[in-house]
Amino acid sequence: MDLIKKIRVVPDYPQEGISYKDVSTLIRDPESFRFAIQDLSRRCQHAAPDIIACAKARGLMIGAPLAYLMGVGLVVMRRPGNLPGEVFSLQQELEFGDTREVIKDSIAPGQRVLIVDELLATGGTSVTAAKIIEKLGGIVVGTAFLIEITGLGGRARLKDYDTISLIQYNY
Amino acid sequence: MDLIKKIRVVPDYPQEGISYKDVSTLIRDPESFRFAIQDLSRRCQHAAPDIIACAKARGLMIGAPLAYLMGVGLVVMRRPGNLPGEVFSLQQELEFGDTREVIKDSIAPGQRVLIVDELLATGGTSVTAAKIIEKLGGIVVGTAFLIEITGLGGRARLKDYDTISLIQYNY
Repeated sequence: MDLIKKIRVVPDYPQEGISYKDVSTLIRDPESFRFAIQDLSRRCQHAAPDIIACAKARGLMIGAPLAYLMGVGLVVMRRPGNLPGEVFSLQQELEFGDTREVIKDSIAPGQRVLIVDELLATGGTSVTAAKIIEKLGGIVVGTAFLIEITGLGGRARLKDYDTISLIQYNY
Repeated sequence: MDLIKKIRVVPDYPQEGISYKDVSTLIRDPESFRFAIQDLSRRCQHAAPDIIACAKARGLMIGAPLAYLMGVGLVVMRRPGNLPGEVFSLQQELEFGDTREVIKDSIAPGQRVLIVDELLATGGTSVTAAKIIEKLGGIVVGTAFLIEITGLGGRARLKDYDTISLIQYNY
């Protein structure tokens, strides 16, 4: 299935010169949604994760069904102020980055964690997620994305990890 | 499986007197996460939805795997400013409510829509979601939640719809 045909490209959103890759047209189509999750599962199987971490709530549209299909647990990272109890917090280093938090005991030492998001752009959020996981003693076994924008250096920033994407755009 | 044992209750969060129901302990456990999604799917089967709508990005932790398992599409509603292209927007009427938006053509007339969220409290967000769906010509075939706080009137506000929840708390 040619998933790229299911993506709607919205020119000049959120600002002029940026062409927004809208995944909503893919996920509302049952066949392409199902195919995407199954294909990601197949490609991530070798990483043998114990858990899937989503660095953004939006990433849950891919990460949550992938966790279900792979039979693993799910952890969500959020912006500050959205999680109860003891949290572990880390500020993203890149200029466009923001702080991510996770519930402190949600990653156990030695746990194999796959980071999943719907889109890889600069990779800033995923790098922060990886650092959080590692500081909590987890092992980042890879990163997986529905879409990758190849021209923004995300894959290079994630070079320490196996990175999988189903659909690629240059910019 | 007794899912309620998997929920962590955090006292006085986000404010004094409120006991926060933390679903993260349930979803990070592969068995209880899988069981919850399968049980919701079984209980929602009779509604025969074409699509699942999540009124909040957080709701995707339940709605996205449920859509995958039921073999239907997925639509996400967001706060204003998060969606590209033409959106349909509706302000929640209740005092604690905020505005919800959806991409305009994401619900087709006659489409059967199941509204899914992780938690039913006052029901405000789900009522807004239902109104948006109906204004776009969709048919709300039910609402489904992992947790229901029974003392806040949510079920009464959703009385026009079949409402399913897996775990109930009084307050």
